[in-house]
Amino acid sequence: MNSESLASATERAAGTPPPPPAVMPRPQAQGSALDRWLLAQLHAHLGSPPLELAMRDGACVGAGAAPPAGRVTFAGRATLLSVLTDPAMRFGEAYSDGTVTVEGDLVGLLETVYRAGRARAGRDSLLRRAIAALHRPHSNTLTGSRDNIHRHYDIGNEFYALWLGNTMAYTCAYYPTPQATLDEAQVAKMDHVCRKLRLTAGESVVEAGCGWGTLALHMARHYGVRVRAFNISREQVAYARERAAREGLAGRVEYIEDDYRNISGRYDAFMSVGMLEHVGLANYETLGAVAHRCLAGRGRGLIHSIGRNQPGPLQPWIERRIFPGAYPPTLGEMAAIFEPWDFSILDVENLRLHYAQTLRHWLALFEAAGERMRTMFDERFVRMWRLYLAGSVAGFATGTLQLFQVVFAPGESNDIPWTRAHLYSG
Amino acid sequence: MNSESLASATERAAGTPPPPPAVMPRPQAQGSALDRWLLAQLHAHLGSPPLELAMRDGACVGAGAAPPAGRVTFAGRATLLSVLTDPAMRFGEAYSDGTVTVEGDLVGLLETVYRAGRARAGRDSLLRRAIAALHRPHSNTLTGSRDNIHRHYDIGNEFYALWLGNTMAYTCAYYPTPQATLDEAQVAKMDHVCRKLRLTAGESVVEAGCGWGTLALHMARHYGVRVRAFNISREQVAYARERAAREGLAGRVEYIEDDYRNISGRYDAFMSVGMLEHVGLANYETLGAVAHRCLAGRGRGLIHSIGRNQPGPLQPWIERRIFPGAYPPTLGEMAAIFEPWDFSILDVENLRLHYAQTLRHWLALFEAAGERMRTMFDERFVRMWRLYLAGSVAGFATGTLQLFQVVFAPGESNDIPWTRAHLYSG
Repeated sequence: MNSESLASATERAAGTPPPPPAVMPRPQAQGSALDRWLLAQLHAHLGSPPLELAMRDGACVGAGAAPPAGRVTFAGRATLLSVLTDPAMRFGEAYSDGTVTVEGDLVGLLETVYRAGRARAGRDSLLRRAIAALHRPHSNTLTGSRDNIHRHYDIGNEFYALWLGNTMAYTCAYYPTPQATLDEAQVAKMDHVCRKLRLTAGESVVEAGCGWGTLALHMARHYGVRVRAFNISREQVAYARERAAREGLAGRVEYIEDDYRNISGRYDAFMSVGMLEHVGLANYETLGAVAHRCLAGRGRGLIHSIGRNQPGPLQPWIERRIFPGAYPPTLGEMAAIFEPWDFSILDVENLRLHYAQTLRHWLALFEAAGERMRTMFDERFVRMWRLYLAGSVAGFATGTLQLFQVVFAPGESNDIPWTRAHLYSG
Repeated sequence: MNSESLASATERAAGTPPPPPAVMPRPQAQGSALDRWLLAQLHAHLGSPPLELAMRDGACVGAGAAPPAGRVTFAGRATLLSVLTDPAMRFGEAYSDGTVTVEGDLVGLLETVYRAGRARAGRDSLLRRAIAALHRPHSNTLTGSRDNIHRHYDIGNEFYALWLGNTMAYTCAYYPTPQATLDEAQVAKMDHVCRKLRLTAGESVVEAGCGWGTLALHMARHYGVRVRAFNISREQVAYARERAAREGLAGRVEYIEDDYRNISGRYDAFMSVGMLEHVGLANYETLGAVAHRCLAGRGRGLIHSIGRNQPGPLQPWIERRIFPGAYPPTLGEMAAIFEPWDFSILDVENLRLHYAQTLRHWLALFEAAGERMRTMFDERFVRMWRLYLAGSVAGFATGTLQLFQVVFAPGESNDIPWTRAHLYSG
């Protein structure tokens, strides 16, 4: 029920004509009536999802919906007004500082909000395109990227180790069946991308963005390839080098603390899993140039990235607090990587439901690590990351976000798979 | 060897300084020297492929290449000049009327020309983009489309029956192995797209562009679905209806002689195999609107189309003589179908090598039907179609053309496959 119909119903019950919409209630209606009206405004803005919005001291809207997906409670009117002026940014802020609390399943509640927003938005509007065009995420120049990556990935390897599982892979896993465990699915993902690139022993691979180095080690150990892996996160590179040395693979895997734009050399395969989100649209042609230079008319490449169905910025609170500079492209926008360099796109797979599942597993580990987490970080930090993980589950589960794996090859190369059956042959 | 180095070598042998490039030879150098110079100009324009260009009365260039991919012979200087002014259009014209002849393997020769052109073109140039932007294929308005389709598909079902094989499917086949026969591969293609759409008994399917109706019958017979299939080719629709009646499937497959823009109703699946080439970029958003209306927030769709790595018009002679109004889009251009309607792209497969193989099989049947063909059509028509088929083999074999199968679903739908393993499970 939106604010207008709520107001209409109240007025009709009193036998008076309904007021013009969006007129502020009279002064005597302050107190809980004003709060109810403000809550109703927010509820309508959200597309009237089936959930309750409430003030800590009692006012409530949306309670008629049965059964509600959950209840969001605001500590006071200042919080409510703040969220109402900019819900996409301020909800996250208020949830983090505890002035907004959520009862019920946080993921389910966020999914409900995403679905209601989609129904309200309808088809791609001019406004949406204008917002996308105006949006300026944190710049991804060489130094900008280093700052952005430092802010996210150098929080501390110990923090990520609490909830990423044994593989320390911080990208969408691949679940052969929905019953697979997180670790099984991360290993299956690594095999999936290696098979998509048809890696064979003795080949050379360049990896653009390598996280904590897990995939590079997997490729070297199980596919017999030599890997040069690039990353600008100092903490991740240090972790990866230590691990390669410990596992006796330092001779076959080289971790380089440098930007993808500085990659040199020629390789049989170009692999990039979960870096494109940080590249920025303006640099897509440059990324394509790097792959083009690396492959030099032969070989094959794979780019794995979060994406979207329609152009639009990352959820702004996540861009501000969690992933500065990040942008999830549409497949159409990704064409700017491939088209200038005459790359053939051979295979695209959308794994968004697998990312929802991955994030559910991460969130469960995150919650299970609560005690340990609280000895390392303050409550605000924990709530911020919980909201990010839960919101990401909701984003992928509702189709607000996509996960694209794109396999490509130089246009002139006929060294391409005849079918994709080899990916599924056991 | 290009014209400049040819001229330089000649002049150096005579002890005189080389002339400035692109200066016409002196009058006394006419006759075969002028012809050689003109042939060399053309050879250089083509990117100096390893083949011979010759005049019927003797002049020849490119003979040094060992072994040449073939020889192209011009009947006279008028023909050569005509081709030189506009090779992309006039080569096809001259080949059709017999004033250009080819010795050696026509497909191999055209592949050589495509490869040399790619090497010369290098990366996407401003010029190439400008040409693509300026290119105006035959318009695909409602009546324009009908004219365009009539010109290609209503030549006579008997003609196509001579070389399409038993299935009368005039789209890229799917070869589980390269050894599969044409008919096997066409049936495998139909099963491949049906499995991609996960058709199950009792569902409804709308087919946009149905050719001679083979896929619609296959879906009804083997997957138990009801099909409404749209096509604006009168001859194809008449053929398809007669066949459905003969095979006892008229109650489950309805062929409608109408434009895809006039499709009404709601369906579980939207299938379009080999129609997008005729839609035209300007109508992509409309095509997406039709799919959006047909699926209404659920179900799934598949579009199968010839494509390109970089934006550019269809080879102009083929657009003029064979496929008026046709345009092969890049995957980035295809985004205009999906993005405005919040469709999720779930799966893209590039089958260009399968189309090269399909076309090789068609060309072999076409040549084998030569005698019968000549009782129906004149030599010019036969040569025109031979060049089109051979050129298309070369286009797909060299990566000049692509073949995309795109599976999509409404963004809000979670009724999407968990993995693609079901496509390969036997």
